[in-house]
Amino acid sequence: MSDGSPSFIHPTALVETDRIGAGTRIWAFAHIMRDVTIGAGCNIGDHVFIESNVRLGDNITVKNGVSIWEHVDIADNVFVGPNAVFTNDRFPRNPHTSYDPRATWIEEGVTIGANATILCGLRVGRLAFIGAGAVVTRDVPPHALVVGNPARQRGWVCACARRLQPAPDGRACCAYCGRRYTIAPTGVRSEP
Amino acid sequence: MSDGSPSFIHPTALVETDRIGAGTRIWAFAHIMRDVTIGAGCNIGDHVFIESNVRLGDNITVKNGVSIWEHVDIADNVFVGPNAVFTNDRFPRNPHTSYDPRATWIEEGVTIGANATILCGLRVGRLAFIGAGAVVTRDVPPHALVVGNPARQRGWVCACARRLQPAPDGRACCAYCGRRYTIAPTGVRSEP
Amino acid sequence: MSDGSPSFIHPTALVETDRIGAGTRIWAFAHIMRDVTIGAGCNIGDHVFIESNVRLGDNITVKNGVSIWEHVDIADNVFVGPNAVFTNDRFPRNPHTSYDPRATWIEEGVTIGANATILCGLRVGRLAFIGAGAVVTRDVPPHALVVGNPARQRGWVCACARRLQPAPDGRACCAYCGRRYTIAPTGVRSEP
Repeated sequence: MSDGSPSFIHPTALVETDRIGAGTRIWAFAHIMRDVTIGAGCNIGDHVFIESNVRLGDNITVKNGVSIWEHVDIADNVFVGPNAVFTNDRFPRNPHTSYDPRATWIEEGVTIGANATILCGLRVGRLAFIGAGAVVTRDVPPHALVVGNPARQRGWVCACARRLQPAPDGRACCAYCGRRYTIAPTGVRSEP
Repeated sequence: MSDGSPSFIHPTALVETDRIGAGTRIWAFAHIMRDVTIGAGCNIGDHVFIESNVRLGDNITVKNGVSIWEHVDIADNVFVGPNAVFTNDRFPRNPHTSYDPRATWIEEGVTIGANATILCGLRVGRLAFIGAGAVVTRDVPPHALVVGNPARQRGWVCACARRLQPAPDGRACCAYCGRRYTIAPTGVRSEP
Repeated sequence: MSDGSPSFIHPTALVETDRIGAGTRIWAFAHIMRDVTIGAGCNIGDHVFIESNVRLGDNITVKNGVSIWEHVDIADNVFVGPNAVFTNDRFPRNPHTSYDPRATWIEEGVTIGANATILCGLRVGRLAFIGAGAVVTRDVPPHALVVGNPARQRGWVCACARRLQPAPDGRACCAYCGRRYTIAPTGVRSEP
């Protein structure tokens, strides 16, 4: 979390921007290109690459071996697991006769599991949980748990990432942390 | 594309061969071993590794985090997506009492999607498209689209990478670029 | 294999421990943190990361692009394929309000295939074989072959990694190397 402390850049990292927020740490052999903006309180692992024009929010963790391409948008409090893979082109060919990049939107608080693959032109909703190794080919609703190749929804998760077991009326209380939700066809709503 | 311009090697890259074609670019923290040959007009991303004795053709893109092992053969105009993984041993054990490497052949113009896994001892045919996250365990015909784990064929693609929708007589005209093909049990043939 | 020869550390590798066994080799752009112990005769590939407090046994191969986190325990003679991914947290979120790491046990002689994903809180038994691209979500018995996402058992393998074809009485003789086993509901037993 950001606490106003200075950022830390490992001596072997290559950082070509000065727009790094307070308390953000960037680890060994990472490469942050110019015209990147990284918020406060982030943790950017070894061997990570962030391409020009990417903007990361605050308190984001990017574990080792991840590349974040232009047109990938990552909101605050997202966790990106090790070797998770993003894309920005649905039809890559060489030579690029028809390069037509698509944006990917990773909303606030999402977890992207280890080695997951996220296709482009889609949105992963707030606090969704992408299981390790999942291949995400379509939009993911907020609070959804998706796993597999292609990724399919297997249920809903709490803000604390544990599975929710909704009652027949759609009400769910997290057995781990006690947060309350109502799960309706229109989505998940937090309850007081 | 190659235009006779000099090659570019990022200052943090480690390049132990001088057989790098005109216009080829090699990016940060990449490691190209000795006795590697890379053609003209290639783009080799950050954190890529290319093992001794590999020969790459012309106009190949290798995105970040890919390792290309000896016995992997990649033809001209291939696109290798980020964190795609090759192999050269079907029965790896430690210690290597029975090391028996097998070749992998990636033909001209193939797309290998992000985070795909390519087993060895197989051939991916010309202009085939390996979907992101696919695990390829057998030969892939030219122009085939394969996805999933294990990868299964889901259809055919044009040279521009878009899906082809063949008519009952096997003729297909790409809705995106207008190229024409005939799709027969023996494979895909370009038509004038 | 360890033969008492000195270890080798590539000039671009970053090694913050001195507990590296005889004959172990550490390659380019790898990062071994402090308070790591690596046994003898290991081979640690390019762009590998090993986190503080990890202990590796002897004669282990870790191919390129792998991160080994605290709480991952790897025994002697294990082969970890390129870009294979480990984890140590079942419920990662940001911020880490409920960090509760779980151990992963990779037993002696296991093969972890290229780009496989290993969830935490589980045990992979001696000489098991995790297929390339598999996503392992539960314990794997000794000598089991598992593939797919999620990984499912498809049979049994010999110490030499070849498939075993048990007779109805459970006896199996490896067609490749001649080792003999009895396969029972309680597991696989070597026979003289």
